Amino acid sequence: MTRQVTVGVIGAGRIGRLHAENLSRGALGAKVAGIADSSLAAAQAAAKSCQVDRAITDARELFADPAIEAIVICSPTDTHAPLLEAAAAAGKHIFCEKPIDLDLERTRQALGAVQRAGVLLQVGFNRRFDPDFARLARLVREGCAGTPEIVRITSRDSQPPPLDYVRGSGGLFLDMAIHDFDMARFLLREEVVEVHAWGANLVDPAIGAAGDVDTAVTTLRFPSGALCTIDNSRRAVYGYDQRLEVFGSKGCLVADHRAHTQVALWDERGRTLDRPLDFFLDRYRESYLAEMREFLDCVRDGRPPSVSAADGLAALRLALAARRSHVECRPVRMDEV
Amino acid sequence: MTRQVTVGVIGAGRIGRLHAENLSRGALGAKVAGIADSSLAAAQAAAKSCQVDRAITDARELFADPAIEAIVICSPTDTHAPLLEAAAAAGKHIFCEKPIDLDLERTRQALGAVQRAGVLLQVGFNRRFDPDFARLARLVREGCAGTPEIVRITSRDSQPPPLDYVRGSGGLFLDMAIHDFDMARFLLREEVVEVHAWGANLVDPAIGAAGDVDTAVTTLRFPSGALCTIDNSRRAVYGYDQRLEVFGSKGCLVADHRAHTQVALWDERGRTLDRPLDFFLDRYRESYLAEMREFLDCVRDGRPPSVSAADGLAALRLALAARRSHVECRPVRMDEV
Amino acid sequence: MTRQVTVGVIGAGRIGRLHAENLSRGALGAKVAGIADSSLAAAQAAAKSCQVDRAITDARELFADPAIEAIVICSPTDTHAPLLEAAAAAGKHIFCEKPIDLDLERTRQALGAVQRAGVLLQVGFNRRFDPDFARLARLVREGCAGTPEIVRITSRDSQPPPLDYVRGSGGLFLDMAIHDFDMARFLLREEVVEVHAWGANLVDPAIGAAGDVDTAVTTLRFPSGALCTIDNSRRAVYGYDQRLEVFGSKGCLVADHRAHTQVALWDERGRTLDRPLDFFLDRYRESYLAEMREFLDCVRDGRPPSVSAADGLAALRLALAARRSHVECRPVRMDEV
Amino acid sequence: MTRQVTVGVIGAGRIGRLHAENLSRGALGAKVAGIADSSLAAAQAAAKSCQVDRAITDARELFADPAIEAIVICSPTDTHAPLLEAAAAAGKHIFCEKPIDLDLERTRQALGAVQRAGVLLQVGFNRRFDPDFARLARLVREGCAGTPEIVRITSRDSQPPPLDYVRGSGGLFLDMAIHDFDMARFLLREEVVEVHAWGANLVDPAIGAAGDVDTAVTTLRFPSGALCTIDNSRRAVYGYDQRLEVFGSKGCLVADHRAHTQVALWDERGRTLDRPLDFFLDRYRESYLAEMREFLDCVRDGRPPSVSAADGLAALRLALAARRSHVECRPVRMDEV
Repeated sequence: MTRQVTVGVIGAGRIGRLHAENLSRGALGAKVAGIADSSLAAAQAAAKSCQVDRAITDARELFADPAIEAIVICSPTDTHAPLLEAAAAAGKHIFCEKPIDLDLERTRQALGAVQRAGVLLQVGFNRRFDPDFARLARLVREGCAGTPEIVRITSRDSQPPPLDYVRGSGGLFLDMAIHDFDMARFLLREEVVEVHAWGANLVDPAIGAAGDVDTAVTTLRFPSGALCTIDNSRRAVYGYDQRLEVFGSKGCLVADHRAHTQVALWDERGRTLDRPLDFFLDRYRESYLAEMREFLDCVRDGRPPSVSAADGLAALRLALAARRSHVECRPVRMDEV
Repeated sequence: MTRQVTVGVIGAGRIGRLHAENLSRGALGAKVAGIADSSLAAAQAAAKSCQVDRAITDARELFADPAIEAIVICSPTDTHAPLLEAAAAAGKHIFCEKPIDLDLERTRQALGAVQRAGVLLQVGFNRRFDPDFARLARLVREGCAGTPEIVRITSRDSQPPPLDYVRGSGGLFLDMAIHDFDMARFLLREEVVEVHAWGANLVDPAIGAAGDVDTAVTTLRFPSGALCTIDNSRRAVYGYDQRLEVFGSKGCLVADHRAHTQVALWDERGRTLDRPLDFFLDRYRESYLAEMREFLDCVRDGRPPSVSAADGLAALRLALAARRSHVECRPVRMDEV
Repeated sequence: MTRQVTVGVIGAGRIGRLHAENLSRGALGAKVAGIADSSLAAAQAAAKSCQVDRAITDARELFADPAIEAIVICSPTDTHAPLLEAAAAAGKHIFCEKPIDLDLERTRQALGAVQRAGVLLQVGFNRRFDPDFARLARLVREGCAGTPEIVRITSRDSQPPPLDYVRGSGGLFLDMAIHDFDMARFLLREEVVEVHAWGANLVDPAIGAAGDVDTAVTTLRFPSGALCTIDNSRRAVYGYDQRLEVFGSKGCLVADHRAHTQVALWDERGRTLDRPLDFFLDRYRESYLAEMREFLDCVRDGRPPSVSAADGLAALRLALAARRSHVECRPVRMDEV
Repeated sequence: MTRQVTVGVIGAGRIGRLHAENLSRGALGAKVAGIADSSLAAAQAAAKSCQVDRAITDARELFADPAIEAIVICSPTDTHAPLLEAAAAAGKHIFCEKPIDLDLERTRQALGAVQRAGVLLQVGFNRRFDPDFARLARLVREGCAGTPEIVRITSRDSQPPPLDYVRGSGGLFLDMAIHDFDMARFLLREEVVEVHAWGANLVDPAIGAAGDVDTAVTTLRFPSGALCTIDNSRRAVYGYDQRLEVFGSKGCLVADHRAHTQVALWDERGRTLDRPLDFFLDRYRESYLAEMREFLDCVRDGRPPSVSAADGLAALRLALAARRSHVECRPVRMDEV
């Protein structure tokens, strides 16, 4: 039988609630002992829907509870680093949503504290656990496509986020493309040498006015010579567009986007297949469950999660390099960051 | 808030456990108050995995429990009719797996008892609730394909069932094609006039020796002139093949089968897309949840389920007509059955 | 070098002109020595566009010309039999459009004359030469799908033919489905045991008034137990729909319809792929060239064409059996025809 | 009636023969009055297969023939400029294969001569005339995808060319990607501002030893903010991979590659669709015919071809910029070239 792991959840926003629901369902062998959020109402609402007894505003109560073995951090980005440090100091294992911090030095500092405390840390790069992407990555590793030569990542939101979110997000490269940078490393299993990025403000002038871009093409150069292009847009009217392509010496592996249904209408216009899933929580539903299952298994076994602090740091450095490349209109070598 | 419905489950086999798990998850607003199975061990195992307190061998305990509002019947087919009558006599609403009985007269008798008792009855034609098929049916009703003219149902198992199962199943037409007969009625919303079926024993001689066929093509003729072909096979090496096509005056609606993932490998052989889901419990997972949600909503609201006793009867009559057509090598008019 | 074959073409309608153009292009190593049509204007127009010198109304001139080795018969169906006999008597090899005649006895008589004369005869079942269908048939023969169990032929015109054409066509089974009957035999390489057909008049009441159906589902039973369903409609608003599916013990081979282009639009409605080719002369363009190449090669080598008089006869018998099955509302055994 | 245009063809290699065959077929309303090649044997072979009377080694004979209205230049790249000048001086209209010259100044000089002579010039960017790509471009112009934001061009050869060819080709950017640069301008209808390219030698070390790359990713930045990525490889084991994607404010237009047939095999491995066409002469067969039809129409009407000298120059400048970007490891602005 699987040992039950007792968890505290910090942050009762969209993603915090999702994790709390997954954790309290029973299937994962976990128990949520408390949900903290700066808004008590939010914490209570989440607690109620997950049948959790304790809803609080001060996360320190969770750290102080000896029954709690692990902390899941889903609060706003600027709280991640101090919470990581506090949880580590309390000897709790940690699952933390990405990014750890928008500042590289602050990130390193927090990760240092985690490392010194000897607790486990998993960073929330959930897409590695998506069944489609995980299968593609496994086939790449098994050599089905031979040696990878060109990787292509398509990552387009269906709709731009609210402007308030944009302003605090760190910008497209740190907020959105960071998932794709992690995916590139996950697929190619080597470290990027150099980054070139061009961004543009084509979707909504207000995003530009807020100092961000909404459209970008980033190219990554790897030591093996492999190249990776990532294209990002904040708006795809046909739905949330998440695709991968790994082209190699023996073939090409392609993960297409996933549709609501397999129903097609053939009429005068042609054959119309159903739209892709629109919303990231639907599209990546299974991945959130799978990453949490992995985290709990690591806690049980005391082994390091497959998505590590180093992965969090590496993706952040790539995002910073891409942003700098865009701003300075030149390729940026990773040893500059 | 949704009112909680208290349910008793009879039968702790594969499908009984599935329903018990869905019902006890919380999301449906139900509570399983007991699980009965002729094997106490089976009842106990199911009860344990669903965190249900009562595991029993005698279903009568469930009928006698005034807290139980509804009964879910998942026991072997030959027990359905007496259980239906007993549950109806106890004033319980009933969800019953298909078929109600292999004998038409016995089916009518049991349904009469249900009707006289005034309880609700839903028959387990889960495929109507599959998201793909439900969407296709909705688009047909909305006229996207115009007036239906030719319907095509593909229904091929990935592997033949065990021979013991075959022997007690009533044969391919009553056991397997019955779902497709219900689907044809669901899509076309009219009653069949005449049935023609040819079966063959091509997959496994032992199935033939057991008196059954494993391959069949059935054609249905409807009053509007619309025609429906159903093809069935007990073995499709590429996976569980469940497809629909409704061709009409304004177009064609097609529900393709569903693959494990959206990953494709392009290599010397061509483009290889992932296999269809192999197992009916995976393929139709969402439909089982959705049909149970509908049943509970009907119990709460006291309204008749969309899949009625009449639907159960009609599908059985079609299955009997198809079997007779196959045996007598001639089309069979529905007024003969 | 390929020896040039000198040919006379009878019939300057749509299909006659197509064959004349293919033959006079040079690529096939043929020379058209004359075109005959009951309308001199039609013969002249065809001759001009193909740069042929002789345009005549009396086909006997072609039979009398010793330079002409082969005759291509594309005139109306009711002239096929006498022209076959005359061409055979003149010692010419013959390519004849299907059907040879709508009457079985008359067909046998004409084929007897051909056989006695010892000339070669190829019947115009062009679809066997379509690159998609030919490849599928080859893969079936090579066993890629194992032993065939269920064959499915979809054959839907984009628009009904003119009523005048319908009246003289022999009806849907003899005019349209005859191609599909030939395809079933071509794919399964065995002779049909029994035929069941249901037709309906759903597309245009005028077709019904002319004594024909416009929608039909035919099922064929083969000695091996294999079953084949054919569905026909005179109208598919989304384009000319020609598809094959051969399901067998080791897999399933599918020939999808062919689109104008590989361009898709992804928008709010979903992913819309381009329409299938609408017109049979576009869809089967390559097949007409390939069947003529085969015919000329057979003439050069003195070997019997792969599509023989027996094939023409067999398809006709199937069409007659299907028509009778529809009229008499019962399956018809092939030994009855 | 279409006026016949008399043409001389220079170069009897693969592409010269193709053009000569298309021109001599009759369908285009042209007549080939002579074929010149430095190898008399090659000229004679081409002339024979096209039924052309005159096979010569000295192209000047064609320029001197007053019956010849237009010259089609398909000889090696380094002969294009002098032949262009000589043809222009002789007052002939010119179709010239790309690139005009590998040197920008030499190209400008030759185009100047053409312009001064007032003759028409069409450059051989055949892909604009491919039915799939032409349709996609038309839909882009019609606004089906809204304002273009991200364009993606996939252009991968099935096999690397011979090393001798590589050595004289000007390298991947000038030889291969030049088609894609033209396509980017054709799709977006604006001029590139800046180019970034990274190349690698991953396919064959001998290509690297010859001073070339075999893998490249190029990004183009346009004044509107639109971005275009092009990926090139000299080897795709699954076939010649030519795809386009134009993502815009209202949707996404995608041109997929074209398969040999529409036949798929469904078996244990999944659904395997047929391979893409492997060879560029097959894949782009229709485009060669269509570009020549356009050229002849322009000659007849005295109107400038849609693919102009300026287009030839622009694509060359982009190729040079991309090569420089790759060599100097920095983005190159088009005003630098």
